[in-house]
Amino acid sequence: VPPVIGIVGGGQLARMLLAPAARLALPVVLLADPEDAAAPFCRDLIAGRPDAGGLRRLAEACDVLTVEHELVDLDTLAALEREGHVVRPSSATLGIAVDKARQRQVLGDHGIPLAPWALTDDPDRIAAFAGEHGWPLVLKPPRGGYDGRGVFVADDLAASRAVLAEVGGEVLVEPRLPIDVELSVLVARRPGGETAVYPAVETCQVDGMCREVLLPARVDADLEAEAEEVARRVAETIGSVGILAVELFVVDGRVLLNELAARPHNAGHVTIEGTVTSQFENHLRAVADLPLGDTAIRHPAVMVNVVGGDHDPLDHLPGALALRDVAVHLYGKSYRPGRKLGHVTATGDDLEEALRRAQGAAAALVEGSPT
Amino acid sequence: VPPVIGIVGGGQLARMLLAPAARLALPVVLLADPEDAAAPFCRDLIAGRPDAGGLRRLAEACDVLTVEHELVDLDTLAALEREGHVVRPSSATLGIAVDKARQRQVLGDHGIPLAPWALTDDPDRIAAFAGEHGWPLVLKPPRGGYDGRGVFVADDLAASRAVLAEVGGEVLVEPRLPIDVELSVLVARRPGGETAVYPAVETCQVDGMCREVLLPARVDADLEAEAEEVARRVAETIGSVGILAVELFVVDGRVLLNELAARPHNAGHVTIEGTVTSQFENHLRAVADLPLGDTAIRHPAVMVNVVGGDHDPLDHLPGALALRDVAVHLYGKSYRPGRKLGHVTATGDDLEEALRRAQGAAAALVEGSPT
Repeated sequence: VPPVIGIVGGGQLARMLLAPAARLALPVVLLADPEDAAAPFCRDLIAGRPDAGGLRRLAEACDVLTVEHELVDLDTLAALEREGHVVRPSSATLGIAVDKARQRQVLGDHGIPLAPWALTDDPDRIAAFAGEHGWPLVLKPPRGGYDGRGVFVADDLAASRAVLAEVGGEVLVEPRLPIDVELSVLVARRPGGETAVYPAVETCQVDGMCREVLLPARVDADLEAEAEEVARRVAETIGSVGILAVELFVVDGRVLLNELAARPHNAGHVTIEGTVTSQFENHLRAVADLPLGDTAIRHPAVMVNVVGGDHDPLDHLPGALALRDVAVHLYGKSYRPGRKLGHVTATGDDLEEALRRAQGAAAALVEGSPT
Repeated sequence: VPPVIGIVGGGQLARMLLAPAARLALPVVLLADPEDAAAPFCRDLIAGRPDAGGLRRLAEACDVLTVEHELVDLDTLAALEREGHVVRPSSATLGIAVDKARQRQVLGDHGIPLAPWALTDDPDRIAAFAGEHGWPLVLKPPRGGYDGRGVFVADDLAASRAVLAEVGGEVLVEPRLPIDVELSVLVARRPGGETAVYPAVETCQVDGMCREVLLPARVDADLEAEAEEVARRVAETIGSVGILAVELFVVDGRVLLNELAARPHNAGHVTIEGTVTSQFENHLRAVADLPLGDTAIRHPAVMVNVVGGDHDPLDHLPGALALRDVAVHLYGKSYRPGRKLGHVTATGDDLEEALRRAQGAAAALVEGSPT
């Protein structure tokens, strides 16, 4: 009999995990706020936060504990593991995934390609780094940022000092790279090491937020193979279980590690329509230690996020549904400008044409249909 | 803002309605038993039965009321309509769909092709019918049977008397037809009359229970067009809203009405993988009066039901998931021999090969994997 899967979090990722859970009859319990996006589609919800108390209540209610976000009390997760609870991915994997400096320490030692980097709160060290690599620099707190929050570009030492003062601690320092394209590779991995790597996707950020994803990435086969091999090695090195999203920069025709997420990821929403097995289904299969599904492309596909503009997309649902050949996904989250409220996927052999279709449907949701 | 959809019933059809409801952010409330298949994946469940009390509680909690089965108190539904509640399909449509004799009365008057039939509890009338059409005859109570239950074949008058005694009322009498193949056509229809017809599927019954479905049906284009046109006329004639499943016999190269279901149907599970928009999504779109989705084939596909044998299919999930190119659907229902517990879908241009793949996966679930 399959294990009861406890999911920390109730946002759109948890919501999208529920559909394959229902299809495969995998029982699920959420640790979430009853107002969260996933709540209407799950009976078994523990109302709480991912702190020690909440995590312990979830652990008692499930056989295997997983996460849909990283804002989790890792010390408690580690304690639960020592007490015999099953946590997938492990607290060790999550500890690496949530810390951009630790990622670089651990993975650089294992031959994963990295840009030059330093971790410091010392302006002199930043000045020396700039002396070697040139201004501007990119400064990031090693933990906590997402969707472009927590990324600072410093043109000089004065700006760097201001960032240090704002952050109030060490920052990861890197040169600002001439990025050709950004890729993400999703890796599904089981506890015993069985691994399934998804084809690399191309991601387009706007203001640091993932906005468009193309499957497959428009890069040559050698580069795609390199990206997928790097991602596989990252997953093995950090012992991930479940989905690991490996974000990569392409600079001068080579991949460099950007960051990790040890959970289903926005870059993988396109797998719902685009690959044989979605990232959500494979995350569940992996954490339940079931055989992984095929990650091959079923249809080339493009995803465009629906980000809150001047109107609630729900008001424009009829117009969007009247468009042909697009799949509309709304998360049921309350409308707020700048908030990710959904996404649209379009499939087709001509990716640029599919992109225009998906953009049109996303615009119809955000702005209202032109009809 | 989309309406709250109240669904009468909590079986696998309700469960499969929840996935597209989540995707389109359509709020759902169920009238069901808390032990039902759909319950783990829905927060808003009214524990109750589809009697007057239950239906009234559901009507108060939703904006539009629909059904996943027909065992509903139609008098109460009609009363709710008179009081201004929105019921889709209407009690009038359901009243026709649940009664095989009324279907024939209403639809025969509108030119829908029917086999010869009579409705009677008089053995002399049955004898006269046999005198005209020959033995054996098929006798059915006009209401209530499904999955082959409630279908009797009578070889002579004595057997017919025994059926009348068992049924205790009128029976629908028809000749036993030399059926070439059985087809089902799903029709999605909105309140204003917008209609989308699915390609005809071929259904294979075992002991009267739908066991295998092929999309598209292996019939010539003229016959397929005739089937789809008949189904469209049936939907318009009875004013269905939501999905209407029109089951047809093919006899001597022509279609004849078999029976109706005014809801998503087993014959349409194959649309989840096989068509652009599944029957479940289009049922929701139709009852919420949203534009209908494309019903075209995305992949030729075959569905095989998973029917309880000697073991619980959940015990064999790992073996089934290890097979490639099959989509496993389990309903989370408690195991019982002969009970529909799930289905498997396989896609591919070679339908016979896909059928073997789906049969293999279904066998792996029911019997255990050969590996």
